[in-house]
Amino acid sequence: MSGDMNRDAETVGEKGARRRGRGGGRAGNARRQAGGVIEQMPWHLPQNTDRPTEPLGEEGVLAIHDGAMRVLEEIGIEFLNKEALDLFRAAGCRVDGTNVRMGRDWVMEMVRKAPDSFTITPRNPARRITIGGRNILFGNVSSPPNYWDIEHGKLPGTRKQCADLLKLTQYFNCIHFAGGYPVEPVDIHASVRHLDVLHDKLVLTDKVVHAYSLGPERVEDVMEMVRLAGGLSHEEFETTPRMYTNINSTSPLKHDVPMIDGCLRLIRRGQAVIVTPFTLAGAMAPVTMAGAVTQSIAEALSAIALFQWVRPGCPCVIGTFTSNVDMKSGAPAFGTPEYMRATQMTGQMARFYGLPLRASGSSAANVPDGQAIWETSNALWSAVQSGTNIVYHAAGWLEGGLIASPAKFVMDCEIIQQIQRYFDPALTATGPEDIAVEAIAEVGSEGHFFGTPHTQDRYSTAFYQPILSDWRNYEAWALDGGRWTAERAHALWKRIVADFEPPALEAGIADELADFVARRKSEGGAPTDF
Amino acid sequence: MSGDMNRDAETVGEKGARRRGRGGGRAGNARRQAGGVIEQMPWHLPQNTDRPTEPLGEEGVLAIHDGAMRVLEEIGIEFLNKEALDLFRAAGCRVDGTNVRMGRDWVMEMVRKAPDSFTITPRNPARRITIGGRNILFGNVSSPPNYWDIEHGKLPGTRKQCADLLKLTQYFNCIHFAGGYPVEPVDIHASVRHLDVLHDKLVLTDKVVHAYSLGPERVEDVMEMVRLAGGLSHEEFETTPRMYTNINSTSPLKHDVPMIDGCLRLIRRGQAVIVTPFTLAGAMAPVTMAGAVTQSIAEALSAIALFQWVRPGCPCVIGTFTSNVDMKSGAPAFGTPEYMRATQMTGQMARFYGLPLRASGSSAANVPDGQAIWETSNALWSAVQSGTNIVYHAAGWLEGGLIASPAKFVMDCEIIQQIQRYFDPALTATGPEDIAVEAIAEVGSEGHFFGTPHTQDRYSTAFYQPILSDWRNYEAWALDGGRWTAERAHALWKRIVADFEPPALEAGIADELADFVARRKSEGGAPTDF
Repeated sequence: MSGDMNRDAETVGEKGARRRGRGGGRAGNARRQAGGVIEQMPWHLPQNTDRPTEPLGEEGVLAIHDGAMRVLEEIGIEFLNKEALDLFRAAGCRVDGTNVRMGRDWVMEMVRKAPDSFTITPRNPARRITIGGRNILFGNVSSPPNYWDIEHGKLPGTRKQCADLLKLTQYFNCIHFAGGYPVEPVDIHASVRHLDVLHDKLVLTDKVVHAYSLGPERVEDVMEMVRLAGGLSHEEFETTPRMYTNINSTSPLKHDVPMIDGCLRLIRRGQAVIVTPFTLAGAMAPVTMAGAVTQSIAEALSAIALFQWVRPGCPCVIGTFTSNVDMKSGAPAFGTPEYMRATQMTGQMARFYGLPLRASGSSAANVPDGQAIWETSNALWSAVQSGTNIVYHAAGWLEGGLIASPAKFVMDCEIIQQIQRYFDPALTATGPEDIAVEAIAEVGSEGHFFGTPHTQDRYSTAFYQPILSDWRNYEAWALDGGRWTAERAHALWKRIVADFEPPALEAGIADELADFVARRKSEGGAPTDF
Repeated sequence: MSGDMNRDAETVGEKGARRRGRGGGRAGNARRQAGGVIEQMPWHLPQNTDRPTEPLGEEGVLAIHDGAMRVLEEIGIEFLNKEALDLFRAAGCRVDGTNVRMGRDWVMEMVRKAPDSFTITPRNPARRITIGGRNILFGNVSSPPNYWDIEHGKLPGTRKQCADLLKLTQYFNCIHFAGGYPVEPVDIHASVRHLDVLHDKLVLTDKVVHAYSLGPERVEDVMEMVRLAGGLSHEEFETTPRMYTNINSTSPLKHDVPMIDGCLRLIRRGQAVIVTPFTLAGAMAPVTMAGAVTQSIAEALSAIALFQWVRPGCPCVIGTFTSNVDMKSGAPAFGTPEYMRATQMTGQMARFYGLPLRASGSSAANVPDGQAIWETSNALWSAVQSGTNIVYHAAGWLEGGLIASPAKFVMDCEIIQQIQRYFDPALTATGPEDIAVEAIAEVGSEGHFFGTPHTQDRYSTAFYQPILSDWRNYEAWALDGGRWTAERAHALWKRIVADFEPPALEAGIADELADFVARRKSEGGAPTDF
C-alpha cells in the first residue's frame, strides 16, 4: 500500500514542480519519498459511500423548514451592514431599521440558485477540491488564540507555531485545504498579521486557502495575494473560485458588518463563501436541538439568499456549528450525542435545500487524552453520518477551539486517514476472489492464511497502515519506552516539521508576494478598530 | 436529568430489595443515591433507532451467503465432538471422520427455527434483558489473563482484581450483563476457579451471567449455581433462559470438543448460546474482509444449525469477531476501518438469517490513551451501525484482549452512556415546542437563552451529563491538578469500588451458594486437562 501511495503523492508533487519549473520542490519531494517520516495515504478526494444517518422523517424536515421560514418571515434577522440593508430593500424584503424580514418564497427562490457542488482551484491545480456531491474533505484547525504542546504547556500563539501547523497542513495528504490561521500569531501586530500569515500560508502550502472577513482591507489583500501566488491575471482569478471565506452569524439572529462585507467582496469576484452560525443550544439558541438547528438554518439562509440575489449561482456552503453548553457551568461542549444529532439533522436540511454542508472536528478537552479523542471521533464520524462535504477544524483542535495542538493534529490525522480508508470500496467488495472460497478450501482446517497466494497477492494493500497507532504487544511497547499516544504524536510532529520542505513556488512569484507584503506594511496594513 | 435518573436507578434496586426481603441492599442504595459517586444514566435497554449502515447491496449479501453455503457443502467443518458427529449423521449430513458437510437447504431450514429475539432472566428479574429486535446491550470485558492500572502497571490477574471489575460491572447501569471473567484470576487453581468466580459474580452482581464451555463439570456447576442464586426449582430454571454461554470456533473451520459440549448442555436445559468465530483476516481467515466474513458465517451457522436440530427454537446468537492483522508483524488489530466494515457486513448477514447479532468493543492499545479510544470508539460505533444486539467486551479491554483495565472500564462507560443518550428520541424531536419559534421570538437578537422559561423548563434533562469528561477551561482544569482522562478514570473507579455495596441477596441463598462451592471444592472441582 505505502509504495503505491507514495507514488501517488509524488505525482501531485511532481505536477506542481513541473508546472512551476523549479527544482527545489521536486528534489525535496524525492528526498521525502526516500526517507519519508511516515508512510501516509495518498492525496485524493474521498467519496462518502454511506447512506446518511437520518434521524428525521419527512415531517421532521418540514417542521424545521417551516420553523426557519417563520423566523425569517415573522421575527427577522438583524443585518448591521448598510449595503446589505439596501440590497434587501431592493429585493423587496421588509427592512425596519436593521431588522430584515423575508418571505419564504423569495428565500427559496434565491437558495435554489446556489450550486449543489463547485470547485476551488489553489495555486497548485493538482490540489483542486470539489465541494459537494459525495465528497468529504478535511481542513486544519482554525483560529485558536493559544497553542499547547507537551513540552511547553499552554502558550499564546506565535508566528513560528502558526508556521509549524501550516507545515503539518501541507504535509498530510488527508488534509485537503488550509482553513483560517491554525493558531493566531499574537506576536504579529493585528494591522499586518494577515499579510505575514497569508505569506507563510501561500509559501508553505499549495492547498486552497481562506480569507477572514475582518474588514475590506484584509479581504482585498488576501484576494490579491492568492491571485499573485497563482500567477493569475485579474480575469483568471475571477473566472473560477480560487479561495473562500467562512463567516459566523452573531447568534442569535444577527449578521455583523465585516462578515457580510467580506462575503460580498468575494462573491462579486467569483469566490466562495461558507456561512456557519455558531448556535450553542441553551445559550445563543434554544435548549432543544431542533430549535437550535432551526435558528441556525434561518441565520444561514438569510445570508445565502442575499448572496444569491447579488450574484445568482455564486458558490455557497451552509455550515453547522450547533452544539450544547454544560448546563451546570455554561461551558460549551463538543462531540456530544446532542452535537452528533444536530449535525445529522442539519445534513438532512442541507440536502433539502440542495446546498453543500460544512461541519467540524471539535472537542472541549484541554489535552490530547481519551476525552479529546472520544469527542473528536464523535464529531468527525457525525460529519460522515451527516453527509458533510467539508470538515473544518478536522485536525489539531482542543479546549473548545481555544487551543491548537500539533500533537493533536497528528492524532486527528490518524482518525481522518481511517475514515478515508473506511470508504475504500475494496473493504466491502464481494467478487469471487473476495469471497475466496478457493482460498478457504486450500487452507482447510489445519493451516493458516499467511503464506497462501491469495494472501501474498494482497497483503501489502489489504489493511489500513497506521501512522501513530502502536499494535505491538505490551512488552515490546514497554521496552521501547512505553510511550502513550500523545507522546508518540509529539515526537512525530517534530520530525515532520524538521524534515519539511515547502512545495514548489516560482522564484518570481515568491518575490511578488514578498514585495506586496512589504508595500502593504509600509502603507500601514489594515485598520485595527474591528 | 440526574434526579430522575437516580429515581429510576433506585427503582431497580428497590424492586430487588423488596423481592429478596433483605434490608442491606436497600439501605445501601439509599446511601448511594445520597452521596452517589457519580450521577449516571438509569438502567434501561436502549433501542437502536438508526437505520443500519449497509455497505453491501443485495447481490453482495447473496454472494457472501452463497460462499458460506459452498464452504459448508463443498469443504465442510471439522467437529471434534463425537456426540456432534452422531447428531449430524442422524440429521443426514455427510460425515467423513471429523469432517461434516451439510446441504444449504438443511442449514437454512435449521437456522430458520432460531428465534430472532429472546429474553434472559437473571436472579434479579428487574435486570431481565431481551436480545434481538432493536435492542443494543453492553457487557464487561471478558477473559484477559492480565490486569493493568496506572499505579501497578501490567500484572497477572487475581481474584481481588476480578471482584473489583465485577463491582464496576454491577455499578454501571449502562452495563447490562456480566460476560466471562473480567480478568482471569490466576491466583485461584483452575480446578476450582469457576466456583470462586461464579460465587463472586452471583453475589456482587444481579445481572445476567455466563458460563465458559470448558468441560462438562464447569458448565453443570455454573448452571446449578445460577439456579440456586435465582431461588429456582430445576423446572423453573429450564422454563426460560437464565444464563448463556459464548463459544468460539477454532478457525479455520473447526469446532472443538468442550465448546460444543457446553452448548449442547445449555440448550437442552433451555439456556442461550452465542457462537462467535474469531476470524482474523490474513491469519485464520482470508485476507479479504468479505472472505473472512464468509468463513465466519459458515463456522457460526454450522454450530447453530446443529443446535436447532437438537432443540428446535433454542435461543442462539451469531457473533462476529472478524478483524485484521498487522501484515508487518502479524499482530492482531482492532477497531480498524476493516473491522468496522466487517461488522457492518455481518450485521447485514445476521438480518438475512433472522438471528440476533453479537459484536465487541476492542482495541490493540496497551494503555487507555488516545489510540485506545479511537479504536474502541470505532468498534462500539460499528456495533451501533451494524444493528448489533449485544456488545461483548464493551468496557475495560486493552492490548487486544490480553489486559483488563478498570480505568479503561470507566472511560468506555462514558462512551457507552453517550451511545445510549444518542438514542434518546428527545434529541431529534420536532414538535412545536422543540422547534421553539416562540422562544426564538422572545429572545430576539440581543438576549440569550439561559434564563428563558423554555430553557428553564428543560435544562436539567436537555443534555448529556458526562461522568468523566472535564468541560472546564484549561486554567480551571490545570488549577485542579491538570489530570488527563486516564488519571481521572483511575481515581473514579477506586471511589466506586470503595463505595460499593452488593445488591440484595437473601441470606438463605447466600448460604446455599457458599455450601455448594465448599462441597464441590471438597470433591476436587473440575478436571484441568482441558
